[in-house]
Amino acid sequence: MTYCCGLMLEKGLVLMSDTRTNSGVDNISVFRKMFHFRVPGERSIALMTAGNLATTQAVISQLEERTKAPDERENALFGAETMFQVATEVGKLLRKTVAERQKANDREGTRSFSASIILAGQIAGMEQRLFLVYPEGNFIEASRETPFFQIGETKYGRPILLRGYDRDMSFEDAVKLLLVSFDSTIAANLSVGMPLDCMVLEKDSFDEPLHQRRFDGNDTYVRSLSGQWSESLRQAFNNLPDYSFYDMED
Amino acid sequence: MTYCCGLMLEKGLVLMSDTRTNSGVDNISVFRKMFHFRVPGERSIALMTAGNLATTQAVISQLEERTKAPDERENALFGAETMFQVATEVGKLLRKTVAERQKANDREGTRSFSASIILAGQIAGMEQRLFLVYPEGNFIEASRETPFFQIGETKYGRPILLRGYDRDMSFEDAVKLLLVSFDSTIAANLSVGMPLDCMVLEKDSFDEPLHQRRFDGNDTYVRSLSGQWSESLRQAFNNLPDYSFYDMED
Repeated sequence: MTYCCGLMLEKGLVLMSDTRTNSGVDNISVFRKMFHFRVPGERSIALMTAGNLATTQAVISQLEERTKAPDERENALFGAETMFQVATEVGKLLRKTVAERQKANDREGTRSFSASIILAGQIAGMEQRLFLVYPEGNFIEASRETPFFQIGETKYGRPILLRGYDRDMSFEDAVKLLLVSFDSTIAANLSVGMPLDCMVLEKDSFDEPLHQRRFDGNDTYVRSLSGQWSESLRQAFNNLPDYSFYDMED
Repeated sequence: MTYCCGLMLEKGLVLMSDTRTNSGVDNISVFRKMFHFRVPGERSIALMTAGNLATTQAVISQLEERTKAPDERENALFGAETMFQVATEVGKLLRKTVAERQKANDREGTRSFSASIILAGQIAGMEQRLFLVYPEGNFIEASRETPFFQIGETKYGRPILLRGYDRDMSFEDAVKLLLVSFDSTIAANLSVGMPLDCMVLEKDSFDEPLHQRRFDGNDTYVRSLSGQWSESLRQAFNNLPDYSFYDMED
């Protein structure tokens, strides 16, 4: 599995992805699932991928036109005029890649070779946008009512996001929130693992991302967060009103 | 979906199940998924069911021999000499029920009509036991290392169980822990819903369960727990060490 999450804040976008891929529990590797492309001063676009690794790597390679000689390549993300067009292009490539592999293996109509993508970014003069692109090639866009997307192993880390997310939170608090959400997921599920990649895309900035960081398993901050969160949860639980078998309304 | 959870404590067993069943989001009903059978002074056995409702109801009905006239019925759970035999019997019935329905509909080898069961209880003179019975008819037993089982929509509520469970906790604290786990699940997933059924089976007691209760959506205790838990999580999150883009070790 995989866990990726993208939060849309008032100030910009905050993304986090794990790096574990597995083909059975006896075949675990580390692969980057977060990618960033930019045209300085003009566009800044990030993708996070979940699902079949060969599929998602093929999609990224095709976006970069790696079949061509380096000087003939033109990233498909750079030609689209709007983020909506970028999402359409990513969806088209994703659907085609999944469908070709299914066809070659007589698995049409199954979920084999499937993948999904969180797409985040901005083109100058337009709004910053956040999309979730499905293996079928269609996509949905984040809104004020649904301001974050998760893909992969989404459930363990969702309760804290639902409770902790605030559109006006700082970038730093958003990174902290994502780290807690990932920590809960990693504690419960072997298929999501460290290191974690993090990226902050400030609104109306088309330079390098405001912040980029890889958190490895020995990171002091992550370890203290994890320990203190465990302790805080236990304390919060103890401080909740006690249940009694008696003296309760029925 | 469904969410059921059974905790094995030093003092006994604590069970909780939701009551929502759905066939599509436009067809939601309330059904009890927790059942208790006992022979006074001799055995006390509880089941919680998840999966296809027709399957699980058929299993319960067959255990109770409802095809026979009331005075000819003998609950299959009452004949087995050990909890291991009870689990074997439940597994056999479950596998048979699922397989028959699949066969009648040409769906062998699929997951159609599938269900799983948490089985908990004790027969006098032997240990209290907790089992998870699979649709294939086999089963696993809880141990000190894995002292609780969840079935149905298990992921949202798992992180708090992993952190809050303690074998030596009181029954009351275990009910509180389960309510928090269910609250997190209900907040994130429409397919799990109130009311919740709760049962406490004290070790070496073969009377009525020590405690039984149905919590409905208006229950004052559950509502205060839910509100305070949200608030505590937010506070716990705020109290975690702040993240900074700078001044961090790399």
